[in-house]
Amino acid sequence: MRPLHTRTRAAAASLALALALTAPATKAAPKADPFADIRREIAARHDESVKRLQDWITLPSIAAESLNSAAGAERMAQLVREAGFQQVTILPTDGKPGVFATLDAGAKKTVGLYFMYDVKQYDAAEWSSPPLEARIVDKPGFGKVVMGRGAVNQKGPESAVLAALHAIRGAKRKLPVNLVLVAEGEEEIGSPHIGQIVHRPEVEAALRRCVGVFMPSASQDADGIVTVSLGAKGVVELELVASGERWGRGPAKDIHSSLKAMVDSPAWHLVKALDTLVSADGNTITIDNYPQPRPISDEERAMIAEASKRRSEERSKKMLSVQHWIDDLSWVQANERLVSQPTVNIQGLVGGYTGPGGKTILPHRVAAKLDLRLVPGMKKDDAVAALKAHLASRGFGDIEVNVTGGYDPTSTPSSARLIQAQVALLKRDGIEPVLWPRNAGSYPGYVFTGEPLKLASGHFGLGHGGGAHAPDEYYVIESSNVNVQGFDGAVLSFVQYLHELAK
Amino acid sequence: MRPLHTRTRAAAASLALALALTAPATKAAPKADPFADIRREIAARHDESVKRLQDWITLPSIAAESLNSAAGAERMAQLVREAGFQQVTILPTDGKPGVFATLDAGAKKTVGLYFMYDVKQYDAAEWSSPPLEARIVDKPGFGKVVMGRGAVNQKGPESAVLAALHAIRGAKRKLPVNLVLVAEGEEEIGSPHIGQIVHRPEVEAALRRCVGVFMPSASQDADGIVTVSLGAKGVVELELVASGERWGRGPAKDIHSSLKAMVDSPAWHLVKALDTLVSADGNTITIDNYPQPRPISDEERAMIAEASKRRSEERSKKMLSVQHWIDDLSWVQANERLVSQPTVNIQGLVGGYTGPGGKTILPHRVAAKLDLRLVPGMKKDDAVAALKAHLASRGFGDIEVNVTGGYDPTSTPSSARLIQAQVALLKRDGIEPVLWPRNAGSYPGYVFTGEPLKLASGHFGLGHGGGAHAPDEYYVIESSNVNVQGFDGAVLSFVQYLHELAK
Repeated sequence: MRPLHTRTRAAAASLALALALTAPATKAAPKADPFADIRREIAARHDESVKRLQDWITLPSIAAESLNSAAGAERMAQLVREAGFQQVTILPTDGKPGVFATLDAGAKKTVGLYFMYDVKQYDAAEWSSPPLEARIVDKPGFGKVVMGRGAVNQKGPESAVLAALHAIRGAKRKLPVNLVLVAEGEEEIGSPHIGQIVHRPEVEAALRRCVGVFMPSASQDADGIVTVSLGAKGVVELELVASGERWGRGPAKDIHSSLKAMVDSPAWHLVKALDTLVSADGNTITIDNYPQPRPISDEERAMIAEASKRRSEERSKKMLSVQHWIDDLSWVQANERLVSQPTVNIQGLVGGYTGPGGKTILPHRVAAKLDLRLVPGMKKDDAVAALKAHLASRGFGDIEVNVTGGYDPTSTPSSARLIQAQVALLKRDGIEPVLWPRNAGSYPGYVFTGEPLKLASGHFGLGHGGGAHAPDEYYVIESSNVNVQGFDGAVLSFVQYLHELAK
Repeated sequence: MRPLHTRTRAAAASLALALALTAPATKAAPKADPFADIRREIAARHDESVKRLQDWITLPSIAAESLNSAAGAERMAQLVREAGFQQVTILPTDGKPGVFATLDAGAKKTVGLYFMYDVKQYDAAEWSSPPLEARIVDKPGFGKVVMGRGAVNQKGPESAVLAALHAIRGAKRKLPVNLVLVAEGEEEIGSPHIGQIVHRPEVEAALRRCVGVFMPSASQDADGIVTVSLGAKGVVELELVASGERWGRGPAKDIHSSLKAMVDSPAWHLVKALDTLVSADGNTITIDNYPQPRPISDEERAMIAEASKRRSEERSKKMLSVQHWIDDLSWVQANERLVSQPTVNIQGLVGGYTGPGGKTILPHRVAAKLDLRLVPGMKKDDAVAALKAHLASRGFGDIEVNVTGGYDPTSTPSSARLIQAQVALLKRDGIEPVLWPRNAGSYPGYVFTGEPLKLASGHFGLGHGGGAHAPDEYYVIESSNVNVQGFDGAVLSFVQYLHELAK
């Protein structure tokens, strides 16, 4: 899997080059095809499968805006029921509903699937093609792509899995594994209620039978290379809010800015609080008693060294529009930092007057939107507790810490069957995957890899897409790039993966 | 004049109580009326005058949005031409056009008028009456008011001056003074080009003949009390902008937040820069080599002590929704700080993701909107130069300092004829004015009081209004409050003031 580009929660366009590989993979000669019948079914059902994806894109579920969550869950349930799941249940949570589904194929092995039916917010004005119309457009270098919100993150790859199930059934083949599917509608807000879905007794019981849980993704970059990631950082998304109401100093409403001479400022209060969280260069966390990362292991260091050789630093910098890494680190050092270090990032600052020009007010309320990335050795709850205690002890106990989502980091050993099956399948397909210790971005795999389930979890899927969280999000349907699979190739990769996992 | 409530650039609603007076004024018995004929004309022309104001409100000129500036200047020119000015010229500037007009009445004395034809931005959704319809509505405690953007800031009082000129002419009286009028369309963005209007040779030549320059205002509070202010703070409005493009570190576009582990953050860079500008409590300026305020004088201290006795601290705190002044200062100390201390205020913070919830980006550009208030002893250019040098020497030289407007502080001695005429007129009317050293807010009086003109400058006008810069801005037309003059009373006050200045 490309750990940053294609996994969920990544602004794929900006991340692609962080993992761009310098050398195209060598392709092995094709062997006798045990899936010829299924391949024919995939081709025959191409239009129907693409139409299913396009229809899904026209129904955007956006948790941050409480948009279409109920309808999105209904659609998700309908999609998996049509794909052959015998038991499909919509599960309410304290937030948006989840979907739990099982498919008993009478197989020996059972595989878990993690789906999301929600998509990221979008601004239609920034798109070259309307984000809800899911038009098929030409993308130079890639071919015909479907363009729309959720195309790659994550409806495209998920639709390819559904298409694989339809094709296997259409070929009158028996599914080689049983399936357990968990879908949520809050992935884009940090999965605050995923535990309320996964930790229900019946869901846990079903998941315990699984060899692991994977999330469908589109993991090929422009060179066709696939990175297999062994985990992901954890994340906390939160807002720090300073207000006169809570502080008891400063105004409880916006007042004229001239009064700054006699009235305290919640905006300055927030700036002073933020200042204590990181070092002068903004790069080292200085929160008192903050959880510490586990040191990077020799195995991880070796993977990073190998991956750094295969990736172009120059292309990565260009794609990210970055001239220097932190501290002018070397490429390998920067990658080690990316994999191993926790972060405290400002996503946005907002408060007072934010329009054009100025407005002479002393605002009563300002907020900083932060995300904290966590690595193994760190727990979400510990990080939040340390932040709150730090603010309180530094005289900022009045500042609200509004946690909107997040979870612990997740790790899966490279020896896990879920991973080894990927590596074997990719190598057989002529693709030498890049092993990567963990995504710097996050997904809620912790709910599977952590207590009590302790399952393997990862991503899988050939194909390519981009623009997750950005305008002009796309997923390749008909590839003009010999290194990249189109939709049908992606579907086939899931057919192959399920069979590989059945072994 | 009420220094905060009614003068321009004040969010009047939030400031009114800062100057609320505890004791109503005692009214003297009326004497024989030398203006009976003019008073009749004012009454006869009431509807026509109010209609003129209402029509003007329907044409909002907003410099920050480059809205209707040309049309606003044309209207301004038309209004003063109709009021009897013989020479009226629209003057282009590098920004929005100004208007210069003269009225030669063959009088011995000449009086200057400073007008603004622009108004503040507004959000119609926040208004109880449409901001451009200038409807007459009932306001409890005040009577019938015209409600609309610009009603009190400053079209209402300016319309009352125009009505005074119409009434004097209508009564076949000779205007007691000659007039020189300067109007601008950029007051609400800090008057960046007022100098290009005032310092033209023909304008300076005309102004040199003036006893002083006043801005029409609505200076009565709910108790009818008038504060005569002897100046105003200067102001600098600016944006500090941190960006990857300028810094050469961090990204030049928004990238995924997980990359914080290897990429510098312009948002943290801005926070660290802001942190150096003020003390830990946000209240003392810590910019290196910043211009220092002139110490408060004994005369100023005495005025503040007297004014503090007449104003209610409790009502002020309630109106401002403030529980404590800075450093828990006493009422007198807080007022001394208000009058005498410079400020560095954050008007707004904006950058990265500012919508609901979070978005996992590392923003490439963030901005802080600041205003710096200046007191005597400080110059705008010196303050900006010190800020830039400070940022450069602290490692923040890449941060843009975008000054959008501002000017030096302004002071007029209490002995000036412009002021003494006000005091005499108010006392004769039974109003004991409160003398106040300087507005904490700002207006560009410096252009008149500074080099080379060195004229007196102030505000004048009976009547009442509120909500400048806020929703539901209003100006009293028919007063139900015995302490407050309605529109016709305001018009008469200008008639009286011009005659007083002619003495």
